[in-house]
Amino acid sequence: MSTFIFGHTTPDSDSIIGAISLSYLKNQLGEDTTPTRQGEINPETEFILDKFGFSKPELKTSYAGESVYLIDFMESSQSPKDINEATILGIVDHHKLGDLKTDAPLEMWVRPVGCSNTIVKQMFDYYDIEIPKNLAGIMACAILSDTVIFKSPTCTKEDTKACKELAELAEIEDYKALGMEMFIVKSNVLNATKEELVLRDFKDFNMGNSKIGVGQLEVVDLSVFDNMKNELFGAMKKLKEEGKRDSILLLLTDIMQEGSQLLVLSDTPEKIESAFNITLKDNQIWLPRVISRKKQIIPFLEKQF
Amino acid sequence: MSTFIFGHTTPDSDSIIGAISLSYLKNQLGEDTTPTRQGEINPETEFILDKFGFSKPELKTSYAGESVYLIDFMESSQSPKDINEATILGIVDHHKLGDLKTDAPLEMWVRPVGCSNTIVKQMFDYYDIEIPKNLAGIMACAILSDTVIFKSPTCTKEDTKACKELAELAEIEDYKALGMEMFIVKSNVLNATKEELVLRDFKDFNMGNSKIGVGQLEVVDLSVFDNMKNELFGAMKKLKEEGKRDSILLLLTDIMQEGSQLLVLSDTPEKIESAFNITLKDNQIWLPRVISRKKQIIPFLEKQF
Repeated sequence: MSTFIFGHTTPDSDSIIGAISLSYLKNQLGEDTTPTRQGEINPETEFILDKFGFSKPELKTSYAGESVYLIDFMESSQSPKDINEATILGIVDHHKLGDLKTDAPLEMWVRPVGCSNTIVKQMFDYYDIEIPKNLAGIMACAILSDTVIFKSPTCTKEDTKACKELAELAEIEDYKALGMEMFIVKSNVLNATKEELVLRDFKDFNMGNSKIGVGQLEVVDLSVFDNMKNELFGAMKKLKEEGKRDSILLLLTDIMQEGSQLLVLSDTPEKIESAFNITLKDNQIWLPRVISRKKQIIPFLEKQF
Repeated sequence: MSTFIFGHTTPDSDSIIGAISLSYLKNQLGEDTTPTRQGEINPETEFILDKFGFSKPELKTSYAGESVYLIDFMESSQSPKDINEATILGIVDHHKLGDLKTDAPLEMWVRPVGCSNTIVKQMFDYYDIEIPKNLAGIMACAILSDTVIFKSPTCTKEDTKACKELAELAEIEDYKALGMEMFIVKSNVLNATKEELVLRDFKDFNMGNSKIGVGQLEVVDLSVFDNMKNELFGAMKKLKEEGKRDSILLLLTDIMQEGSQLLVLSDTPEKIESAFNITLKDNQIWLPRVISRKKQIIPFLEKQF
């Protein structure tokens, strides 16, 4: 019986590509694994997979009775609903230690780096397994995406080193140009509904007794959102109510200006304001230099809730 | 400010030696770390440290405001009381994923192997750092202890490989004989109170809403306990009441016969009986081939509670 490997709900490029790369590695090591995904892929991921000739992993949202490896998450809020009925054999991740538990010992490769695929690259090196050219290509793209072309404060020397080595294996001549191409694809927000946009890169967190949802859209020019703020707030309101969330935050990140417009709907806005030492105006504020949800948003929210 | 590295409460040899070996490695990598311990060392650990010329790490039970690495555990029940006020930078462990959480990304080296020091050995190899002769000696002993000289079902090829390489570095000619010498030291149970014996290698687990304590004593000949069962039950009763535990289990493990006499005091004995498909007689039973608490006891209890 095959072991399934998958990333978090509303998967980003790192989650999808990490499932593919980790599954390839595990299979080379003699295991029988299959990459899957918990949700639809986003336009950036589609662009990357197309460019290097990969199909998207099979959609699978239920894992009761299965053995699994998780990549790019370790929070129950980002897991399949029946995760407690699955056997977690291992976790490869670069986030904070979440609330998942296991009954038995497992394998965990967790590092405070910018991208899960950086860790998978290190695993390939550790086991001395060769990375095929096209696989190296998508792994390099995952790192460029997750680290915002090395601009994110989450980006470490290990990420840049891994990305450069992968780009060389993939014979990518100008990886920064490829990164910009990806972010231009990502910046196309006109062909999606507002709810799809809020959910495109969206994560729920259980903090204390509150459920907090935080979405992020990274674009090369923030002006694309100029005429759709009210509609984005409308979609946020709907999701907040339907999901019984205490708060919904949406980060509109300008990767060229290197900062984010923060949109907030919250039952406890004073906690959000305290978390970042800000005063919201019309439920929003510009946060200069903030581009990482994981490093610049979540830890400060955790302290409040 | 130094970062502290320590193992679980009522530390065993792996916890103490792991703190020393991981601290040495981290310091070689340019960090400033100090090994500490949460409790008294046991006679086996003392024998090992003496043999290779090490002092025991400093006793330290409070870590509020400190940065820490944890080794050989990731359960709040085995942590310092103020662990939530410390910053966990990393975890090296070979147990199930426990209930600790962090606010920020961290480093985790977790493998389903028989001993934490096997993982530390792999970390030395990964970073290509040389292991000094005497450090290799105590690390080899930790593996011999945790894997019951390779007899435990938790022992993997990685453990035997690491132990043999460490024994070679330490110029230990007959590591199995050294293992037996250690277990003979461990078998000396006459100079301790019965409460000390129950607590010598004792771990608490939060399972569901129940607190379950499980102690283990590994000896080369079970007959040493023949005349002290009633007194051991007396000590268990006291600890059960004082600690508000649902159950206390004590495994008296005979490493030559390769099995354990299980002693049980429980508010819900039927759950213990179901867990192992046994019928207790006078609150005890012989379990042939059972020598690993982690692999042959805890997962089955978890399913019941």
